[in-house]
Amino acid sequence: MSDHPQTLFHETTFTAPSLLQSRRETFHAVGVKAQLAQLRKTGRYDCFNLKWQPGIYDDLSRWPCPPPVYWDSDVAKWIEGACYLLLDRYDAEVDAAVREIVEMIRGAQGEDGYLNLYFTVIEPEKRWSNLRDQHELYNAGHMVEAALAHAKYYKNDLFLGPILKYVKLIRSVFGPEDGRRHGYPGHPETELALLRLYAVTGDQAAYELGRYFIEERGNPTGQEGKHYYDWEADERGDSPWKRPNSYVHAYDHFYNQSHKPILEQDTVEGHAVRAMYLYTGVADLLCLDSSKPFDKKTAYFEALQKLWDNMVDRKMYLTGGIGAMLNWEGFGIDYFLPLGTDDGGCYNETCASIGVMMLAERLLHLDLDSRYGDVMELCLYNTVMGAMGLEGNSFTYVNQLASSDKDPDRRESWFETSCCPPNLMRLFGSLGGYLWDYGSSDSNKAFVNVHLYTTAEVCFETEDGVKVKLEQKSDWPRDGKASFHLEAPSGIETTVRLRWPSWSSRYEVTPKSDDEFECVKGYIVFPPSYTSKHADFAIEFDGFTPRQVYPHPYTNQHIVALARGPVVYCVEDVDNAWEKDHFRDTGLVRTGEVREHSRSLPVPSLSGDSSVQELEYVELRADGWTRQASKRREPRNTRGQNSIVQAYAAEEAGGGQPVDLVFLPYYLRANRGGRGMMRVALLRE
Amino acid sequence: MSDHPQTLFHETTFTAPSLLQSRRETFHAVGVKAQLAQLRKTGRYDCFNLKWQPGIYDDLSRWPCPPPVYWDSDVAKWIEGACYLLLDRYDAEVDAAVREIVEMIRGAQGEDGYLNLYFTVIEPEKRWSNLRDQHELYNAGHMVEAALAHAKYYKNDLFLGPILKYVKLIRSVFGPEDGRRHGYPGHPETELALLRLYAVTGDQAAYELGRYFIEERGNPTGQEGKHYYDWEADERGDSPWKRPNSYVHAYDHFYNQSHKPILEQDTVEGHAVRAMYLYTGVADLLCLDSSKPFDKKTAYFEALQKLWDNMVDRKMYLTGGIGAMLNWEGFGIDYFLPLGTDDGGCYNETCASIGVMMLAERLLHLDLDSRYGDVMELCLYNTVMGAMGLEGNSFTYVNQLASSDKDPDRRESWFETSCCPPNLMRLFGSLGGYLWDYGSSDSNKAFVNVHLYTTAEVCFETEDGVKVKLEQKSDWPRDGKASFHLEAPSGIETTVRLRWPSWSSRYEVTPKSDDEFECVKGYIVFPPSYTSKHADFAIEFDGFTPRQVYPHPYTNQHIVALARGPVVYCVEDVDNAWEKDHFRDTGLVRTGEVREHSRSLPVPSLSGDSSVQELEYVELRADGWTRQASKRREPRNTRGQNSIVQAYAAEEAGGGQPVDLVFLPYYLRANRGGRGMMRVALLRE
Repeated sequence: MSDHPQTLFHETTFTAPSLLQSRRETFHAVGVKAQLAQLRKTGRYDCFNLKWQPGIYDDLSRWPCPPPVYWDSDVAKWIEGACYLLLDRYDAEVDAAVREIVEMIRGAQGEDGYLNLYFTVIEPEKRWSNLRDQHELYNAGHMVEAALAHAKYYKNDLFLGPILKYVKLIRSVFGPEDGRRHGYPGHPETELALLRLYAVTGDQAAYELGRYFIEERGNPTGQEGKHYYDWEADERGDSPWKRPNSYVHAYDHFYNQSHKPILEQDTVEGHAVRAMYLYTGVADLLCLDSSKPFDKKTAYFEALQKLWDNMVDRKMYLTGGIGAMLNWEGFGIDYFLPLGTDDGGCYNETCASIGVMMLAERLLHLDLDSRYGDVMELCLYNTVMGAMGLEGNSFTYVNQLASSDKDPDRRESWFETSCCPPNLMRLFGSLGGYLWDYGSSDSNKAFVNVHLYTTAEVCFETEDGVKVKLEQKSDWPRDGKASFHLEAPSGIETTVRLRWPSWSSRYEVTPKSDDEFECVKGYIVFPPSYTSKHADFAIEFDGFTPRQVYPHPYTNQHIVALARGPVVYCVEDVDNAWEKDHFRDTGLVRTGEVREHSRSLPVPSLSGDSSVQELEYVELRADGWTRQASKRREPRNTRGQNSIVQAYAAEEAGGGQPVDLVFLPYYLRANRGGRGMMRVALLRE
Repeated sequence: MSDHPQTLFHETTFTAPSLLQSRRETFHAVGVKAQLAQLRKTGRYDCFNLKWQPGIYDDLSRWPCPPPVYWDSDVAKWIEGACYLLLDRYDAEVDAAVREIVEMIRGAQGEDGYLNLYFTVIEPEKRWSNLRDQHELYNAGHMVEAALAHAKYYKNDLFLGPILKYVKLIRSVFGPEDGRRHGYPGHPETELALLRLYAVTGDQAAYELGRYFIEERGNPTGQEGKHYYDWEADERGDSPWKRPNSYVHAYDHFYNQSHKPILEQDTVEGHAVRAMYLYTGVADLLCLDSSKPFDKKTAYFEALQKLWDNMVDRKMYLTGGIGAMLNWEGFGIDYFLPLGTDDGGCYNETCASIGVMMLAERLLHLDLDSRYGDVMELCLYNTVMGAMGLEGNSFTYVNQLASSDKDPDRRESWFETSCCPPNLMRLFGSLGGYLWDYGSSDSNKAFVNVHLYTTAEVCFETEDGVKVKLEQKSDWPRDGKASFHLEAPSGIETTVRLRWPSWSSRYEVTPKSDDEFECVKGYIVFPPSYTSKHADFAIEFDGFTPRQVYPHPYTNQHIVALARGPVVYCVEDVDNAWEKDHFRDTGLVRTGEVREHSRSLPVPSLSGDSSVQELEYVELRADGWTRQASKRREPRNTRGQNSIVQAYAAEEAGGGQPVDLVFLPYYLRANRGGRGMMRVALLRE
């Protein structure tokens, strides 16, 4: 039951260059050290020596949560990602830094096991006083995940030991028992971390806490007859009307998904990252059911399905981004998906789409269905992959689908709240764990469910310790071919299942089978009768020609984007230098022809030497497509049948001047200078 | 300089039935008494006897502003409207109630002149402690307006006397002088009321206060180096993070237009009613310039123009509604105009469109331009007129363009916050004042600028006391004809200007003129050379056939509505009984034919007798127009070129089943039962 991607990824090897592997290499060569340098430069690193004092960061007055309150998590995520990369390839500088910081963390732990920088150094009297806003338990969760990664690589308990002691302390404070607090993390994360800690170590306190945090969440009368966050606000002497900017209304806790118990939630609301981390924790609890029976498994699974469907059907952008609302960094109402700041929002935090991938991966364990795998891939190749610049040291935090003068499309080397860069690193560091599920159902049966196509191999043992190996080679997402080589002893009946993406209408398998392949919930089943005959086989999916995609009509957006395979495209001013207003007036006519061009971009100076790799991709060109004429208001007192004061005459996408448009993958945007003008979806006829 | 519609309306007589007059009659027969009954029933009336105690209203804990805090204004607006109606026609019951309530108000005034119910009876220690939220000065403004209406009808100072004393007290508390408070109303209204008080009485304190409130507003360092509202929050001991739900962010005062000084405001923001009342007050200040020179007239006029253009071009619905955002009952960003709750909002408070009419009327004095008159008429015939049910005792507060399950289209007899019903009454009571401007530029020259077409006459005197009378007859908005009869002594050179609505492309005048008529900023000029020859003349505008209207393309709404003259149409389930989901899937194809039908609706039992009047209107029928097929998400794993996980295939308005649609004027919606399904704008091809 320790089949988390962060646990299993090391059984997968990326055996040759691929788009996915190129991003992993960038982390090895640049990302891990660039982020370490940022941790050092901003004081996040050294503060663990406990000599940190107010003054190193001058905005501690920011209420409710000065950034140093979550510095622990930035460092923890870096450690976690660094250990994943170390498992892949040794690096002396990274190794030394991990050892040093872990020593500092050990020294920062209190006698009682408490381990949190801010509430040890700056405001020790406020420990556990504001779970809603202060990230105290959130940090604990990331520390747990870092310690698990550390133990996996270093095979010692220098980090894990202190963490288990800290978990014991937390368990003594929180839980269902009288006299303990009935609270839970304002920013979920702790739940999934504790349940993974249990899966690896069997620690009961971790299981009890993780489950309790999930089941208690949103209890309207949990503490002395009050919602826990209202109770703790009263304890602090805060007016309930004193609330963070992200709280839209007093007493309304949707921001952190505690507005009602999870089992009663049927729409996904509030802060998008919190939501994804929380529901991933719930899925983890359900995955543990076989070793830790959970009587509400069915009910929670139904809740997760409802929440997933609400999110994917009504609250997800066609890039896989989630979170339309800047104000609470999260979900708006159904079908409210404005493309950018000028249209009313579009936050789409990088971490949120990473969270979608985490949740999707867990759901695939509970219900093998390509609808989860499709979304996981959509996020990976668009919002997630696009969040790091090609050179590996620049990032996007917000991933709009259209730029504006107020929010031009550009990257930053770091952020005041810098959750996204190290989150990307741990995701790509453990990416092997997302490619496939595998195992054996009994002693002579093995299976591999392939979710993502790339070039990699996995090697695992059946229950009897027999080795099975599956290798795949693919140039995905440049084309739809993938070839497989299976190595399994003849006594092992191996089933391979391949995800059939929903945007693909046909596939072809070689060698052909005598029987038609069954397709179960979007996975094409290669039964043992086939795999035993064909150790080598290949598949080719269609869908790798440009296609037009549209958002749901209820978004009220009469727009069109181009996609090809799982990759969504965008236009940038770098390629379309005539543009002046973020492509706001640019429309596409249906009759336009789209041509493909193979292109490549240099991936600059990885590892400091002069070698330049080339990242290959498919560019799209739409010649003779149309730029819409200006749609500004008519001069006043212009007269016409179609005018009613502030209403407008109809203008069509076809009404303007022809122009040639160049599209490139959204994940490659903001890498080549320019004026920060970008748009994914254009007006359509 | 007392040329406010509330001052001049009585010089206009509605001489025969018309749509406008029918609504005035409804107020006479039903509205004024129905609202009086509500004031009595809810305790608003009797509370002025100072015997009111907590308990009569049980939600005094509502922060920051329990509804009784603004009860004064409800009563004041009723008095104001009642006095306007009394001027038109005597009613013993109304007269007695006004006399009684004014006696109570006189008795409620403190020795020092203070006059506010809540802060006299319930929380006297909190006087002037929270201008931002507590409506204390707002109430004072409505009391001023009520007293002016009272003095106009009763020709005594029983009400105006106490009010002038109260104004003197307020002036002693607020102003630029050291030792006085540098505050201003959280809810503007006081400004326009004080300036009108000055215009009628010449009271200097009123002028100084009104002007000071305008000039001081938004000063970031007005009181002890702080923004006044931050200063008073500190004085109260409130955390700045303790804020009303309508305050999106701490320290951000856009909600009440005090985020910056008015001269620096170039986009219209925040609570829509507050904005309209504030800018109307500013326009009043500019109108006073000839008697009270104002050195910043040009700068403030430029600011008003910018704000007007921003509102009309980017933040106004095609019904004349303003205020997309429920959360602060006001303006969203540019072009953010969702049709209803399901689309992300649409508040469009009745009072806000009344405020637009007030502002437009003032701007017409400063700059005779049909762009103001067109919007004034748009609001009148759509959002404003539609806000009262035909029977005169039911209202809408919010005026969405599309209903939803959460917010069905229906009326209420009263509201907890019941600003709109009495506001409608005073608007219709003083409507004559909005029809035209008139006067004389010197002793032998007179002019009438006609803004609205109906059947009415106005009689006024030139500077030399010579009487001029203009009569108009029209069936507007059923057709575009209006005939005029001018009576002026032969020595008077009279210029008549008629607004040419922007949706009309042609007009025809009878008798014809030898010279072409000049059209200046949308007003057709009938010079003395014409009017002296033709005491009777008529005009007919085109634009009274159905036309399709669209919102600005940047709204991203691919929708179409039908309009005819100034009237916008809607569909209701009463006429289109097949509808199940608020016409959300209903589209119009361009080829559909629209037919007109003359219809009438009974206006029920006015004045309690059995007579039933008929309100005539033009119904539109679009036969064979198309209902769009369901656009629900495809079944999962359906495959196709146009699908990318959560993206959708293109569907067109033309793709569904033909259906016949019946449209009726938006102002007649929610009068005939039904299931509360209504929509103004449908999907278009």
